[in-house]
Amino acid sequence: MPEVVLGEGKTPDQIAAIGEKLVERTGRLLVTRLNREGYRALQAVVSDAEYHELARVAIVDREPRPLLNGVLVVCGGTSDLPVAQEAVLTARMLGSDAGLISDVGVAGIHRLFDQLERITAANALVVVAGMEGALPSVVAGLVASPVIAVPTSVGYGASFNGLAPLLAMLNSCAAGVSVVNIDNGFGAGYMAAQINAMVHRERHD
Amino acid sequence: MPEVVLGEGKTPDQIAAIGEKLVERTGRLLVTRLNREGYRALQAVVSDAEYHELARVAIVDREPRPLLNGVLVVCGGTSDLPVAQEAVLTARMLGSDAGLISDVGVAGIHRLFDQLERITAANALVVVAGMEGALPSVVAGLVASPVIAVPTSVGYGASFNGLAPLLAMLNSCAAGVSVVNIDNGFGAGYMAAQINAMVHRERHD
Amino acid sequence: MPEVVLGEGKTPDQIAAIGEKLVERTGRLLVTRLNREGYRALQAVVSDAEYHELARVAIVDREPRPLLNGVLVVCGGTSDLPVAQEAVLTARMLGSDAGLISDVGVAGIHRLFDQLERITAANALVVVAGMEGALPSVVAGLVASPVIAVPTSVGYGASFNGLAPLLAMLNSCAAGVSVVNIDNGFGAGYMAAQINAMVHRERHD
Amino acid sequence: MPEVVLGEGKTPDQIAAIGEKLVERTGRLLVTRLNREGYRALQAVVSDAEYHELARVAIVDREPRPLLNGVLVVCGGTSDLPVAQEAVLTARMLGSDAGLISDVGVAGIHRLFDQLERITAANALVVVAGMEGALPSVVAGLVASPVIAVPTSVGYGASFNGLAPLLAMLNSCAAGVSVVNIDNGFGAGYMAAQINAMVHRERHD
Amino acid sequence: MPEVVLGEGKTPDQIAAIGEKLVERTGRLLVTRLNREGYRALQAVVSDAEYHELARVAIVDREPRPLLNGVLVVCGGTSDLPVAQEAVLTARMLGSDAGLISDVGVAGIHRLFDQLERITAANALVVVAGMEGALPSVVAGLVASPVIAVPTSVGYGASFNGLAPLLAMLNSCAAGVSVVNIDNGFGAGYMAAQINAMVHRERHD
Amino acid sequence: MPEVVLGEGKTPDQIAAIGEKLVERTGRLLVTRLNREGYRALQAVVSDAEYHELARVAIVDREPRPLLNGVLVVCGGTSDLPVAQEAVLTARMLGSDAGLISDVGVAGIHRLFDQLERITAANALVVVAGMEGALPSVVAGLVASPVIAVPTSVGYGASFNGLAPLLAMLNSCAAGVSVVNIDNGFGAGYMAAQINAMVHRERHD
Amino acid sequence: MPEVVLGEGKTPDQIAAIGEKLVERTGRLLVTRLNREGYRALQAVVSDAEYHELARVAIVDREPRPLLNGVLVVCGGTSDLPVAQEAVLTARMLGSDAGLISDVGVAGIHRLFDQLERITAANALVVVAGMEGALPSVVAGLVASPVIAVPTSVGYGASFNGLAPLLAMLNSCAAGVSVVNIDNGFGAGYMAAQINAMVHRERHD
Amino acid sequence: MPEVVLGEGKTPDQIAAIGEKLVERTGRLLVTRLNREGYRALQAVVSDAEYHELARVAIVDREPRPLLNGVLVVCGGTSDLPVAQEAVLTARMLGSDAGLISDVGVAGIHRLFDQLERITAANALVVVAGMEGALPSVVAGLVASPVIAVPTSVGYGASFNGLAPLLAMLNSCAAGVSVVNIDNGFGAGYMAAQINAMVHRERHD
Repeated sequence: MPEVVLGEGKTPDQIAAIGEKLVERTGRLLVTRLNREGYRALQAVVSDAEYHELARVAIVDREPRPLLNGVLVVCGGTSDLPVAQEAVLTARMLGSDAGLISDVGVAGIHRLFDQLERITAANALVVVAGMEGALPSVVAGLVASPVIAVPTSVGYGASFNGLAPLLAMLNSCAAGVSVVNIDNGFGAGYMAAQINAMVHRERHD
Repeated sequence: MPEVVLGEGKTPDQIAAIGEKLVERTGRLLVTRLNREGYRALQAVVSDAEYHELARVAIVDREPRPLLNGVLVVCGGTSDLPVAQEAVLTARMLGSDAGLISDVGVAGIHRLFDQLERITAANALVVVAGMEGALPSVVAGLVASPVIAVPTSVGYGASFNGLAPLLAMLNSCAAGVSVVNIDNGFGAGYMAAQINAMVHRERHD
Repeated sequence: MPEVVLGEGKTPDQIAAIGEKLVERTGRLLVTRLNREGYRALQAVVSDAEYHELARVAIVDREPRPLLNGVLVVCGGTSDLPVAQEAVLTARMLGSDAGLISDVGVAGIHRLFDQLERITAANALVVVAGMEGALPSVVAGLVASPVIAVPTSVGYGASFNGLAPLLAMLNSCAAGVSVVNIDNGFGAGYMAAQINAMVHRERHD
Repeated sequence: MPEVVLGEGKTPDQIAAIGEKLVERTGRLLVTRLNREGYRALQAVVSDAEYHELARVAIVDREPRPLLNGVLVVCGGTSDLPVAQEAVLTARMLGSDAGLISDVGVAGIHRLFDQLERITAANALVVVAGMEGALPSVVAGLVASPVIAVPTSVGYGASFNGLAPLLAMLNSCAAGVSVVNIDNGFGAGYMAAQINAMVHRERHD
Repeated sequence: MPEVVLGEGKTPDQIAAIGEKLVERTGRLLVTRLNREGYRALQAVVSDAEYHELARVAIVDREPRPLLNGVLVVCGGTSDLPVAQEAVLTARMLGSDAGLISDVGVAGIHRLFDQLERITAANALVVVAGMEGALPSVVAGLVASPVIAVPTSVGYGASFNGLAPLLAMLNSCAAGVSVVNIDNGFGAGYMAAQINAMVHRERHD
Repeated sequence: MPEVVLGEGKTPDQIAAIGEKLVERTGRLLVTRLNREGYRALQAVVSDAEYHELARVAIVDREPRPLLNGVLVVCGGTSDLPVAQEAVLTARMLGSDAGLISDVGVAGIHRLFDQLERITAANALVVVAGMEGALPSVVAGLVASPVIAVPTSVGYGASFNGLAPLLAMLNSCAAGVSVVNIDNGFGAGYMAAQINAMVHRERHD
Repeated sequence: MPEVVLGEGKTPDQIAAIGEKLVERTGRLLVTRLNREGYRALQAVVSDAEYHELARVAIVDREPRPLLNGVLVVCGGTSDLPVAQEAVLTARMLGSDAGLISDVGVAGIHRLFDQLERITAANALVVVAGMEGALPSVVAGLVASPVIAVPTSVGYGASFNGLAPLLAMLNSCAAGVSVVNIDNGFGAGYMAAQINAMVHRERHD
Repeated sequence: MPEVVLGEGKTPDQIAAIGEKLVERTGRLLVTRLNREGYRALQAVVSDAEYHELARVAIVDREPRPLLNGVLVVCGGTSDLPVAQEAVLTARMLGSDAGLISDVGVAGIHRLFDQLERITAANALVVVAGMEGALPSVVAGLVASPVIAVPTSVGYGASFNGLAPLLAMLNSCAAGVSVVNIDNGFGAGYMAAQINAMVHRERHD
């Protein structure tokens, strides 16, 4: 497992100090919710840290391993991409080569059906949605694999910063859905990769 | 328009007194959210009042008129039936012969597609849903007519008595959705019938 | 129907890319909740995009059609104008020449009665209000047409960013009121125009 | 001032003991939010205690004084009557002969205008409303006297037990409105009588 | 009554336009929740508008009248001063020369008793408090006059922007307390002056 | 330390089984939030279990020890007595002979000052209050010892089952106040006795 | 997959009708949140339906299959047992022979360490907790397998019917935790069995 | 006791004026939640005021006294350090030389056990935690001394600015935990030092 640091709530100096120490120890690092300023401080001491601006994630992986198939990240649109990308990058750090479908939505549900084959083939799915947060229910109704749902704070007014899709996902009428914190692409990508690794590990026993 | 009385929060005596007076005046009456006890008091003074137990609605209509087509009420399952029935009965009192589709859900979305023709033919739709409240978004993505969404208090835990589907519906990613109060089948049936009547009125000008 | 893009939560680059593609396809575009910076990026690639600053809306309409009468937008004061304008502009994009009454309020209710003729003539009304959100109830008590209520985040303290008028509108004691998300002038204008179009379509059958 | 006891949250024995002691001391007593069982216990020791069932109030007043004019209690309908009656009875205990108008509502606003003379004549008004809680704003827009607004828990769903009218009243766009707790007819009647007494006291100086 | 404008939520241009029109009509104006930028725009067209920075209030009063005694504003400390000053300035605009006691608090309650004479002499009191919002209860326990309570958004964490003192004040165990919106010094000053004017008006009949 | 069982959420059978096992082991037991039915089941197997009805507490203490002075429980009135008694009984089980003052309130603050000597003599105070929850702030302003505040669910409407005093206490403007869960007399009595024991233990070293 | 019915919100007649139809079709049935009365109606038409009172679950399984190892359900105490049992029974219906550890808690954490071997051996864990909801974080810190967390409504006051542990679990500082609805043992048992089945399926390929 | 000023919500000028006056009077001062700008204003008039940037605290102590042992502040990580430091600095101002353990967490609970000796030796503990807020329960399960829990606003999404750990701590399943406001390191450090002082005072009698 890589070392993981939550960038938010830490000063650039703290991030640099923590990041440097962890990279020295393991050669691997994942910093989430990291702004540009924090990244610059990190890069000054860990020059090979890569920054993914949209996902606000920094990554160091000095001995990359081959990645496993089986994780799929699904989201409804452009606004949910940062969280979906965080999930993809996290899953990669944990050894799974997560695919991404980013333009399927509840109000235009046919686009979802066009991707049915990819969706049903995954061992674990991360489904990211803001607004009414209905996508995980629809996806879980189509697959036999577990769905990790991520509500996003995209939206306004009665979204209450993601409370609306969070509650919706917790009340999913489809079985096989569990939920992580609002905007927590990391947590969802982590668990999906964890499940996928278990499936593959067993296969090679 | 029929006289409408909210049964909840009134004593049986109050309901009987109000109901009697209104029926005398207009020969028509709709009482919503009425329990058995309140109905008995009403029936004692208005003997032709009919009670619809599931919907908790009492109705008097001494000069029924022919009903218009064009309103459709859609819900996902058994638990949402009382609210859906309240919408159907209200629409009838307002002159529309509302149809009812009661077994289509987000997690088994194919059943919705089987009813596509009926759904797209309606002038106004009432979509009732508890849990994650996603059905109105899916329906609105399939039709050009207005969708009146009714969240229900069906569910438990983080449903918070219907707050979850209420927020979900207010954040619908589909255009053409507006929302009424939790469990307010009356309000939705009323507005759907109101729209339908306008469409028909114009047709006959 | 025009293509509609929610500007909020997207980067200027994303807005420009999406907007350009959609305009190419249909010659029509509506971007809501768009700030100046996003508009500039859009205008660089779609030079005939118009920006309505108060409403924070960008519009492209290369083949404007004649507009239908029958939609009326009502609000109580200056602070609600941005949302009311968003409703007006949306209704226009959907083919209805929405009128606007912008200075009637619950605490000075006589100004509302001065406009009674215009109000009762509309096929569909959008009523925008912040603060206690009572205007839709008063208007719905005066008309037979459906009222789409829009709560606004105008106010402070116990308004809780529009929660107060949202709840008030959901609890309207007047029948014929449904509600859209806080500040969602788009959603209300859309549904009002949708209803109006249905009424006119039927008329010409 | 009479002694006042909140009946709710006390056992019948406690109510009897407290009530008896207070009546002995002052010959006057007001118990609010009192159920039948509590009243029976009280009556057993204070035989002249009167019970007002609808308002759930018990009263003892062994030396009634002449009452002052000038307080008016206004509510919209049958369901708000218990709270309105609590306000009336409280004002009487404090020396003001409160009038009651109980059938004026926001959705049928003309009935309010029929009572304009009485409304503008009052020194202090108590306005009781559930649902969207808009009545105090409308009344305050018509009078120069202070309006004490009382939200009620009448309603369902997104009323959240009176939260909706409470927030609405706190956000009143009319000046001259202040608010007491949900269902607190006592508090409003008390303050209205307090204001009225001050006005009269000064007059007789 | 002076014309009153809520500055928040309006552009500087809108404030200038509205303010100029109102001053022309009546020679008096009160703008609340006005920032420096809005004031500058107003001053450019109404050169005698005075700005009270702490209270964020602009005032024009071209024919000042003699002020009545009898209103007292009480708050606990420095942080509540802006709201308390808004109440004082509003009361003055309405004809009452409001006094101000600004350093009495619940945790150092003896300082309150030192002011007992002034407090009991007032016809109407405005009590401003953040944090636990207990001051109005304590004051109301000491006086026979009505207390208008104003919760403030001063504080952090579980204050939830003033929700804590708002709820506390609504639940006051002292009779004779009513509440206005969070930070609404205007509303409280208005009602206090309204009550005071009634008392004085009667006296001079 | 005695074994402690939360009675609520357990069946009578479960309470009897757990209680019997614990008493056998230690000869001491405290069951909180226990209804009559649960007590009867317990008593059937532990015949010397005492039930305190008001506090809903059952106690077994087969080798009572001498109790320490130094804990004082303070509350404002009859309705808060059950919670105050739970605190007193818990403190006793933990070795402190807690005193009780039960008739001091914020709106009649002089009664608090009459007890000043007892209040300032305590090593630890438990202050129980519903409604606006202001009593802990006032008490903490008068003493140098720590105050454990207990909000109660006494009240109605905007008390929201104790949320109002809970928030008020968390925002206390007095230093030296910490808070336990709503109605958690047990938790407060426990901590007060814990502090008192530490003070006495040191004294006898 | 067995057919699953949510018993709550359905009348006994509805449950019997639905249950009978589903059993006929598949020979398997799981009804959750079912009270005694509903079970009796079901049993009248499906005589081999078994009722698990504590878990409020009815089960029919006419062709039981051998169960897989690998699911473990963990909870902290007696009060969480109903939800934990619902998870165990659900997992069994889905083919996994779920183990149960029911007496490990955060405040007595050593009991958790005594079970370390069983905990680390599971392919998927369900961790049920009320109160502060901390158990899933502690467990996830000890294992490499995914943890499905279930908040329970056990508790009182500021638990707000399970909101407290729900929020705590969503904010878990441990990676590898996802959350289902309050008291939703079914959902957690379902997903755990789903993961376990995938692991085993792969193993036997 | 030192004079204490809440910096937040005060202008730099107000802070300087208040701070200067208090230092003159007592030679001691503690300003919390103070930003750089406020500090500069203070330093201009009180040149020996020290600023602790991380904790946002300014301190003046012209006659430092020897400090007592016995207070320990515990937190889980870097993000909680500002609040933990505020507690440490406050305890010092009140006479206790608070220790700090800053790297123990619920998800890596073994690091907590490494510090068991220091933890059990303290007379009073302050435990600071964001996220799921579980650390106080775990610590209280290990010690006999009182634990003052401080929730922090560290986190995002469903943390709701510290509401999640606040509720968790109020629902702690461990006895001996009480809670202060979100981020209120001051309040916790104050009470811990208060308890510690009482223990030491008794010892030297």
